[in-house]
Amino acid sequence: MTELLRDYMDEKKEWFESKIPKLFQNAPVTPKLEQAMLYSLEAGGKRIRPILLFATLQAFDQKEEIGLTTALGLEMIHTYSLIHDDLPAMDDDDLRRGKPTNHCVFGEGTAILAGDGLLTAAFQIIADDQALDTDTRIRLISLLARAAGPEGMVGGQQDDLEAEAKRLDLEDLISIHKRKTGELIRFPIEAAALIAKATESETEALVHYSEHIGLAFQIGDDILDISGDEKALGKPIGSDLANHKNTYVSLLGLTDAREKLAQEVEKSLHSLKKLGFENKRLGDIARYLLNRTY
Amino acid sequence: MTELLRDYMDEKKEWFESKIPKLFQNAPVTPKLEQAMLYSLEAGGKRIRPILLFATLQAFDQKEEIGLTTALGLEMIHTYSLIHDDLPAMDDDDLRRGKPTNHCVFGEGTAILAGDGLLTAAFQIIADDQALDTDTRIRLISLLARAAGPEGMVGGQQDDLEAEAKRLDLEDLISIHKRKTGELIRFPIEAAALIAKATESETEALVHYSEHIGLAFQIGDDILDISGDEKALGKPIGSDLANHKNTYVSLLGLTDAREKLAQEVEKSLHSLKKLGFENKRLGDIARYLLNRTY
Repeated sequence: MTELLRDYMDEKKEWFESKIPKLFQNAPVTPKLEQAMLYSLEAGGKRIRPILLFATLQAFDQKEEIGLTTALGLEMIHTYSLIHDDLPAMDDDDLRRGKPTNHCVFGEGTAILAGDGLLTAAFQIIADDQALDTDTRIRLISLLARAAGPEGMVGGQQDDLEAEAKRLDLEDLISIHKRKTGELIRFPIEAAALIAKATESETEALVHYSEHIGLAFQIGDDILDISGDEKALGKPIGSDLANHKNTYVSLLGLTDAREKLAQEVEKSLHSLKKLGFENKRLGDIARYLLNRTY
Repeated sequence: MTELLRDYMDEKKEWFESKIPKLFQNAPVTPKLEQAMLYSLEAGGKRIRPILLFATLQAFDQKEEIGLTTALGLEMIHTYSLIHDDLPAMDDDDLRRGKPTNHCVFGEGTAILAGDGLLTAAFQIIADDQALDTDTRIRLISLLARAAGPEGMVGGQQDDLEAEAKRLDLEDLISIHKRKTGELIRFPIEAAALIAKATESETEALVHYSEHIGLAFQIGDDILDISGDEKALGKPIGSDLANHKNTYVSLLGLTDAREKLAQEVEKSLHSLKKLGFENKRLGDIARYLLNRTY
C-alpha cells in the first residue's frame, strides 16, 4: 500500500469509527442488546466499504460527510451479516478478527437479535438522514435492500449454505461471491455515485469497477487464507482448506488465483480510466488489492 | 364477532393473501430461500395487522389499495420475527399455527436467512411503492424501523429473553409487551393515519386506541392459552403455564385478566369516540377482542 493511501484509510477509518459509539445514544435501547450490537460494530476490520463510499464521493469532489450516515448503515448491515454467519447453525465460528464471536460472548439468542437490530436500525438511520433529500434516501434504501436482501447478499449466503458439501466450478463460485460479498462492495460505490448525482454512464463505469474489485477482494481473501499472516488476519491460516471450502485457490491453484487477481485489478483500473479516475483514491485502492497482506 | 366484521376480515384476508405468492415473482431469488420465506408468510393467521391498516384507511374514507404494499411489508416483518422467535436458540418451538416451524422444515441456517431476507425485502417493497410519494415512504420506513428495531420489537424480544427465568410484576410485563408485540399493532394504525394525512390530534387518538387494543390483544392471547380451543389455535393449550411463562393470567388470575381485558377494550373505544370512529370497523375490532375464541 502506498504511504498516501494508508494515511487516507487510517484517517477515514478513525473518523468513521468515532461515530459508532454514539449510534444508539439517544435511543431507548436495552443495555445488553446495545452492548451486543456495538461489540461487533466496534470489532473493526479495515472499514473497506465505508472507505469505498468516501473515496467515490471524493472522486466527484463531494464532501465525505454527506455519505457518513449511509456508510454507517452499510457497515451495520455488513456487521449483522457477520454475526449471523458466525452462528452455530451457519459457519459455527468462535473467533472473528481475533475476538470471540458475538454468540460466544452474549449467547445465541442475543446474537440473533443483535443482528436483527442492526439490520433494522440501518434502514432507520438512512431514512432519518437529514443531510440528504427524501428522493435520494428512498433510492439509497431501495438499492441497499436489493444489495443486502434475498436478491443479493442473503441469497448468496443461501447459495453458499447449499454449496457447502458440493464441489463447485469457477462459474458457480463467482456467481455465489457476486451476491454474497460483491453486492455490498458495489453498494457504497453506487450509493456515492447517486449522492454525487453522477450521470448514467459514469455510474455504469463505476459499477464495473466495483464488480472487478469485489472479485479481486474475494480472491485476495482466499490467497491470504493460505499465505497470510495469522496475527494480522486475526484468524488461523489454512482454515478454508481444513474446512474443504470452495475457494479460488482450491479451484485454480495459487499461481492462477494470483493471475486472476491481477486481471481483475487491471480491469477495474480500465473502468476508472474512462472516468479519468485512475489516479484518484479509487485507483490506489484497486492497486492496493493486488499486494495486500491483511 | 359480528357477522359484518367477520365478512370484512375474511374478505380482506383473502385479498391480502392473494398478493403473497407474487411477492418474489420478478426477483432473482434462490428457490429454497423463496420457498422458506413464502412457507411462513403463507402460514396465515388472522392478518390482524394488515386488517388494522385497511380498517384505519377505511375510517378516513381512503381506498385500502394505497396501503397494500405497506401492509405486505409489515406482515413480512411480523413473519420474520416469528421465524427467528421459534429458533432453538430462542423459544425452540416445533409448531406454529398447527404447522412445523420454519427451521423444522428448512433447517436452522435457512430459517435464519429466510427471516433476514423477509426483514430486508420489507423495506425494499415499501421504498419501491409507486402508490405513495417519496416523503410518505420515507416516513413509513422510519416509523416501521423504529417499531420493529432495537427501540421496538427487537428490544422487547431481548427483554423477554432476559425475563425468562425471572418472576415479573405487572408493570414489567406491560413494558415488555408494549415493545415486543404492541409496536407492530401500533404501526399499521399510525401508518394508515400518515397515508390518510390525518391531523396530529387524530393521529394521537388513534395511537391511544392502538396501545389499548395492543394490550387487549396480548391479554386475550394469554387467556386463550388456558381456555381456548386447541384446534382453532393450532397449538397445545396450557403451554405458557407448562413453560412457566409470565403472562397476564399467571400474574393476575383468570378473572382479573378478563376484567383488565374489558377495561382496555373500553379505553380503546373511548379513544375512537373522540374521532367519531366508534361505530366503524375499528370499533368492531375492539369489541371483537373482548370475546374472541381464537
